[in-house]
Amino acid sequence: MINIDDRVMGEALKAKITTAEKAAELINPGDKVGVSGFTPSGYPKAVPLALAKRMESNPFQIDLFTGASVGDELDGALTRVNGIRNRYPYQTNKDLRKSINDGKVHYNDVHLSHLAQQIRYGFFGDIDIAIVEAACINADGGIVPTTSVGCTPTYISQAKKVIVEVNVSQPLSLAGMHDIYEPLDPPHRQPIPLVTPGDRIGTTYIPCDPEKIVAIVPCDITDKTRPLAPIDEDAHNMSLHLIEFFENEIKHGRLPKNLLPLQSGVGSVANAVISGLAQGPFKDLSIYTEVIQDGMFDLIDAGKVTVCSGTALSPSPDGLKRFYNNVDEYRKKIILRPQEISNNPGLARRLGVIAMNTAIEFDIFGNVNSTHIVGSKMMNGIGGSGDFARNAYISIFCTNSVAKNGDISSIVPFCSHIDHTEHDVLVFCTERGVADVRGLDPIERARVIIKNCAHPDYQPMLEDYLERAIVATKHAHTPILLDEALSWHKRFQETGSMKK
Amino acid sequence: MINIDDRVMGEALKAKITTAEKAAELINPGDKVGVSGFTPSGYPKAVPLALAKRMESNPFQIDLFTGASVGDELDGALTRVNGIRNRYPYQTNKDLRKSINDGKVHYNDVHLSHLAQQIRYGFFGDIDIAIVEAACINADGGIVPTTSVGCTPTYISQAKKVIVEVNVSQPLSLAGMHDIYEPLDPPHRQPIPLVTPGDRIGTTYIPCDPEKIVAIVPCDITDKTRPLAPIDEDAHNMSLHLIEFFENEIKHGRLPKNLLPLQSGVGSVANAVISGLAQGPFKDLSIYTEVIQDGMFDLIDAGKVTVCSGTALSPSPDGLKRFYNNVDEYRKKIILRPQEISNNPGLARRLGVIAMNTAIEFDIFGNVNSTHIVGSKMMNGIGGSGDFARNAYISIFCTNSVAKNGDISSIVPFCSHIDHTEHDVLVFCTERGVADVRGLDPIERARVIIKNCAHPDYQPMLEDYLERAIVATKHAHTPILLDEALSWHKRFQETGSMKK
Repeated sequence: MINIDDRVMGEALKAKITTAEKAAELINPGDKVGVSGFTPSGYPKAVPLALAKRMESNPFQIDLFTGASVGDELDGALTRVNGIRNRYPYQTNKDLRKSINDGKVHYNDVHLSHLAQQIRYGFFGDIDIAIVEAACINADGGIVPTTSVGCTPTYISQAKKVIVEVNVSQPLSLAGMHDIYEPLDPPHRQPIPLVTPGDRIGTTYIPCDPEKIVAIVPCDITDKTRPLAPIDEDAHNMSLHLIEFFENEIKHGRLPKNLLPLQSGVGSVANAVISGLAQGPFKDLSIYTEVIQDGMFDLIDAGKVTVCSGTALSPSPDGLKRFYNNVDEYRKKIILRPQEISNNPGLARRLGVIAMNTAIEFDIFGNVNSTHIVGSKMMNGIGGSGDFARNAYISIFCTNSVAKNGDISSIVPFCSHIDHTEHDVLVFCTERGVADVRGLDPIERARVIIKNCAHPDYQPMLEDYLERAIVATKHAHTPILLDEALSWHKRFQETGSMKK
Repeated sequence: MINIDDRVMGEALKAKITTAEKAAELINPGDKVGVSGFTPSGYPKAVPLALAKRMESNPFQIDLFTGASVGDELDGALTRVNGIRNRYPYQTNKDLRKSINDGKVHYNDVHLSHLAQQIRYGFFGDIDIAIVEAACINADGGIVPTTSVGCTPTYISQAKKVIVEVNVSQPLSLAGMHDIYEPLDPPHRQPIPLVTPGDRIGTTYIPCDPEKIVAIVPCDITDKTRPLAPIDEDAHNMSLHLIEFFENEIKHGRLPKNLLPLQSGVGSVANAVISGLAQGPFKDLSIYTEVIQDGMFDLIDAGKVTVCSGTALSPSPDGLKRFYNNVDEYRKKIILRPQEISNNPGLARRLGVIAMNTAIEFDIFGNVNSTHIVGSKMMNGIGGSGDFARNAYISIFCTNSVAKNGDISSIVPFCSHIDHTEHDVLVFCTERGVADVRGLDPIERARVIIKNCAHPDYQPMLEDYLERAIVATKHAHTPILLDEALSWHKRFQETGSMKK
């Protein structure tokens, strides 16, 4: 067995060290299980694999609550044995996604900042058991998380039983990077005392009654982080457009020279934008975001960042190595917080976060689809985009102007699903340019979005749609053609292309 | 001239007393004009009427910024002389609505909590002049607002010039009801120090550099508040359903016995629900809302309320009389704040507001349309519904199950416009019942919304649509039929009824 003696303090706790198989026996059919993990980082691995094995021979289901997406050892392995009944609040796993879209798993796509409090409020029933990954456990039960915090503090505080996986692949030098603060609930909640992105307001470990810890399992399986697409020309162009936009904001006195705290969504485009800032003119940047991807390391290495606050490290496999190799330097700049704090709308507004997120599509009037392919199929989930976009200083959505080799226009007459409304988004960006829609009415917005963001292949079609809608509705505030609004998606379904 | 000597302190200020006509001459073509007023309460009247008269003989346009809707002396009179170029952030005026939907006025429908800070951020350019209604002016320029606060503190702090209308129809006993706090902007913003709905965190007047005051105009025109529809059986039933829902939440330990601070949208349904609570079993209620309607007076008179915080009094004409007649009692319970504070998302979340707002329509998956008739025509605007709904403890939307004598189903396959997404709403209520969709996936949500909220005339049609969409998409996460999703609205346009 892997030796974790130096990571579990106190004889009482050491006595709880057991195998993943034994720990998995503690999970009962129908249990509501809260796990650590946010993006494929800091999630438990050995116990879920043992649980999947147990379910294979003795089928049953659980309800699975995470921070956000987690690794295949959880979402994949449990899905493949049909072990998940309800799943909250976000996922990115191929097999799970298929089961969600086959109606086999009930998936409720929740704003990431909402989940922890709604669990405490009792909206999802009681959490039976928590399974969390730790770097080490203090003698008083205090649990030091690893590469993510997510909802772990809440699962630990709310669960009746706690299983801890102590993962020796996670360096002990992670200790001290976390800042754990769990708010009281209304009517007793107090202001969260954070006024700059680098403030520390809590403990470096998650408090846990040691009596609740029912098993401690050694593990050496590494985080299965996802590769990032190489930064292509389109993504590079988006970052240049945004840098130019920021420079213009500074020139007009609407942003300070070091900008305001930056938030950047998950994925390759967001990563390219952040990475682009490493070559940009801005200094003394601060980051108040959800996940810390490779681009953030570029920014730190370039000496451009004073502090980088998030709830998870979510680098590529190469980025994870880069982080581990230089953890003592990176830890000086990085703070990991519960997602209830990293994504808190009150804090996003107080700090004046510049929110940059990725859209699947947006429509000419400025509504954004972040979640559904052609309206029906769930891709991943809304994640934290809504937490930030709604409450940001300025809210920006990026996407390539076309997808599927040009057969899909990411700018459409009407979104097939809406996750962010026209009220919530002020700036749109594609590789073609930036549409700044502040102060504009819907028709003005449509004209600037088509002109600045749409692909030339689709611009004439969008203009034609808009002008005909204006005539048909006699210049109504938001002119739409009810029988054509979703026709582009329908055409794509039928012909494989939105082009006529 | 109306005597306002006892309402304007200090000779320097008294010397600025002038006529509405003279004051209106200070407004230049193209000016960005910020005015007091939120719902038809506390808005300037004499100067806008004089301005409209001036525009009639000498046409020009201004950009008009308000708190929310204002009276006909502003929105109506200026619209009728084509005097408004851009209008922000909310309106309810018949003539203005028509001009917005004829493409004559550019209207940008903004979350009400966003406007003040975005003006300070410079997103709308500089405010040239503020016109504000006051009960009185202190010698240091401090302005005591009347029946609303809205964005007035920001217009006063940001405008180059300030015109004050001192309205003698507004009792001096309003002084002391207001609590004025304007946050600093990022990166200097501090936590708003409010932890209960009754906390006072600011001044009872709006600070104003007396040098900026360019004119003081006497006025005796009364607020033109709007009548409320009588509480009909449907509205009464909604209030009974919600009371039952709250009782069940208390029973299950998810709400304290005195609930949590209540927010209630503008309008007759919302008013009926609040009024219904006056007959309900709950005591020691607190209100943290946007507008204070007649129902709130019922609650106060019934001794059920400890404190009632809002940004505007918006009673019916009868309710306004009732308020004035008993202002010394009501003022003990009522606090009026800037809409940036009353609608602040961080505070809604901190206090754990129970948000109750009104929908035009919602769809089976839980998206809500608050603004657009059949997708294209602007009704009023999103107002504060999004500020609260997104950040509430629990977010509830109410509507009658049908409209237009049954020819419109308020529950549709797909909203023709979306202001609140499926992620933002947890409870739906019609006169038929309550759909509690917490924790449910989209198909589960659709089934409970159709069953509990839809009208029997439309239930079979909605069920049929849902089941066919499930088959057609092979049980996709959110099954929609792209060519039918908006067909109910199309049918209504063509035949005058959504019925087949």
